[in-house]
Amino acid sequence: MQVNGKNYETIWMKDQMVRMIEQNLLPYEFKIFTARNYKETCFAIKSMIVRGAGAIGAAAGFAMAQAAMEADARNYMTYLKIARKDIESTRPTARNLFAATEKVYNAALEGKDAALNAAHEIAEKDKMDSLNIGKLGNGLIKDGYRIETHCNAGWLAFVDHGTALSPIYMARDSGKKIFVYVDETRPRGQGAKLTAWELLNEEIPHAIIPDNAGAHLMSKGLIDMVIVGADRIALNGDVANKIGTLEKAIAAKYYNIPFYVAAPISTFDFNCLTGKEIIIEERVEEEVLYQKGIDANGHMTEILVAAPNAKAINPAFDVTPAGLITGIITEKAIIKATNQEIMGLKD
Amino acid sequence: MQVNGKNYETIWMKDQMVRMIEQNLLPYEFKIFTARNYKETCFAIKSMIVRGAGAIGAAAGFAMAQAAMEADARNYMTYLKIARKDIESTRPTARNLFAATEKVYNAALEGKDAALNAAHEIAEKDKMDSLNIGKLGNGLIKDGYRIETHCNAGWLAFVDHGTALSPIYMARDSGKKIFVYVDETRPRGQGAKLTAWELLNEEIPHAIIPDNAGAHLMSKGLIDMVIVGADRIALNGDVANKIGTLEKAIAAKYYNIPFYVAAPISTFDFNCLTGKEIIIEERVEEEVLYQKGIDANGHMTEILVAAPNAKAINPAFDVTPAGLITGIITEKAIIKATNQEIMGLKD
Repeated sequence: MQVNGKNYETIWMKDQMVRMIEQNLLPYEFKIFTARNYKETCFAIKSMIVRGAGAIGAAAGFAMAQAAMEADARNYMTYLKIARKDIESTRPTARNLFAATEKVYNAALEGKDAALNAAHEIAEKDKMDSLNIGKLGNGLIKDGYRIETHCNAGWLAFVDHGTALSPIYMARDSGKKIFVYVDETRPRGQGAKLTAWELLNEEIPHAIIPDNAGAHLMSKGLIDMVIVGADRIALNGDVANKIGTLEKAIAAKYYNIPFYVAAPISTFDFNCLTGKEIIIEERVEEEVLYQKGIDANGHMTEILVAAPNAKAINPAFDVTPAGLITGIITEKAIIKATNQEIMGLKD
Repeated sequence: MQVNGKNYETIWMKDQMVRMIEQNLLPYEFKIFTARNYKETCFAIKSMIVRGAGAIGAAAGFAMAQAAMEADARNYMTYLKIARKDIESTRPTARNLFAATEKVYNAALEGKDAALNAAHEIAEKDKMDSLNIGKLGNGLIKDGYRIETHCNAGWLAFVDHGTALSPIYMARDSGKKIFVYVDETRPRGQGAKLTAWELLNEEIPHAIIPDNAGAHLMSKGLIDMVIVGADRIALNGDVANKIGTLEKAIAAKYYNIPFYVAAPISTFDFNCLTGKEIIIEERVEEEVLYQKGIDANGHMTEILVAAPNAKAINPAFDVTPAGLITGIITEKAIIKATNQEIMGLKD
C-alpha cells in the first residue's frame, strides 16, 4: 500500500536481506529496517519492529530461509535446528510463526532454494488471502457507506492489504465514496496511531473517534457497518479480538447495524469449541495510566494521565459472542458465525 | 470529603472570602484558591478553577453575596446589577449559575445579611441534596457490590458528596464492602483523573479501566450495577451525560445489569420533551489527538497520541434513551425514567 505516495509491503526479502517497515516508530517516523541474517530478523520480531499475525508469519518464514542460506554444508542440519529454536522463541504465542518455521524448515531439508521458495510462498499467500478478503468484503460495501473499525487490522499487520481494512481499500479502488470512523482503541491507541496513519497515506476520508463515541454515532444514524479483525475465532463463531470489540458489537446489534469480522482461515482455532475457553491476557496497568506520544519538540515522551498512585486493570482482548456477528469475511467466502459454516472452511 | 486525611468541601465562604479547591491542578497538585472579591470569584468560575454544576451554582451565589458586601450604600443597586451581569457572563450555559444569581440578587434587595444567608442556603441545599441522593442510592447497593461509574459525578462537581459517587460513599460509611470500576472517560479522562483521585483519598477500593473494557467485565459477571451522573434529563426520562454513557447503558441492558442515573431535581429540564431536542456540543479535535499529563520530571506536558495530521471528531455528550435506565436517584426519591414519575417531582 501507499506511504508518502510510494508503494510498500510491510516486509519483503531480497538477496538474503529481509527488509521491513519499522513499526514501533510509527506513526511519528517512517523507516525501513534491514535484517542481514536470521538473528537480526529474530531481533526484529522480538522487539516488535514487525508486528501483526500475518507479518510475523512472513518474518519467521524469511528468517528460516535466511538460516538455510547462511548454513554451511558441513553443519547444515545443526544450524537449521538451532535457528528454528531461536525463531520460535521470539514470540512464543504467535501461532502463525510456528506454522511458518515448520513449513520452511521442512522445505530446507530439500535444499536452500526450496527453503527460499517456501518462505516467499508464505508471504505471497498472506498477501493473496488479504486481497481475497478485500474483494469479498467489498461486495458488502455500498457507495456512500460510513464504516466504523476498531484497532488496526490493516496492511501493517499483514504483508499487504490487511483484513478489516482490505475491503475498505477495495471499495475505494472500485470507485465507491466511503468514510471511515476510526476507534482510538485505548489503551494502546492502535486506531489513532496505525489505522489513521494507513488511511492518511491512502487518502481515504476518515476521522478518529474516542472509543466512547461509537454508540452515539450509531444512534445518530451515522454508521452503516462495522468491520473488525480477529485474534482467534472459536468453532462456534465466538471471536476474540482487541478489547472494546464486544462493546461495538453490542451497540451495533442494538441499532441493527451489520457487524462483520474479517480474518484469514488461519485465525480459526478448530480445537477451541467456544469463546469461553479463550483465556484473556491481562497486560500491565502502566499502559492505561501512562501514555506515549511526541511532545511539542518532537521528542517521544511518556506522561501520567491518571491520578498519581491510582491502580488500573488492563484486559487486552474480549470475546464477542457469535450471535452478535453478522458474518465473517474469509479469503474463501463470507460465512455466518456458526459451527456448521466454520467446519465447512476446513476442507 | 477527605483529602490527605483532612475534611474539605469544594467551595466555602468565610469573612467575605470565597475559598475553593483549585480543580484545574488536580489530580497532580492540591491547592486552595482564595477569591477576595466577587471579581476574583468570577475569574475562578471562568478559568474552571471551580467546575461542575453544583459547585458552579454555589460559586455564583457566593460571588453575588460578595458583591452585596462590597457595594457602597450610595450606589448599591448599580453595583449589584453590574456584578450580576459579570457573574452571569462567566459560564453562560451553566443553568445552576443563573438560578443562584437570581436568588441572591433578590435577597440582596433586602440587605447584605439576607444576601449572605441566601448564598449559604444555596451551598447548603446542594450539599443536602447530594447527601440525600447518597442515602437513597445506598439502599440499592448490596454488600460486596462491584459498581462501574463513568466520568466524574463526585463531590468535586458539587459542594460535597456528589451524585453518582454519593451512594458509594454512603455504602462504605454503612459498612458495606464495595469495589468501584472507574471508566477512564476519554478524551478528557475525568474518571482516571478526578474520580480515581476522590476514591484514593477516601480509600475506597477501585481500579481505572479503559472505556473499552466495560462490556468485557460485564460479560465476566464482574459488575453488579452502573451509576452515572447527568447533565440534563428530558421530561420522558432520556438522559444527556458525558460521551460513552450510552455505550455503558446498552451493554448493561444486554447483560441485565441495573443502570442508574443520580442527579438532583435541578438537572431535569421540564421544558425539554425528549432527548431528541438536546443538541450535543462538539468540542475541539485537539482533545482527542493530544493528551495532557505529567512527565517523568513532574512537568505538565502535552503530547500527540495520534498519527500526525490526523483528524478527529469529539462529541462531548450523548443521550441515553429512558428505556435503558433502571432508575433515577434524586434527592426526593428514586424514580423510574418515565414522564409520569418525572412530572411527579415538580411539586
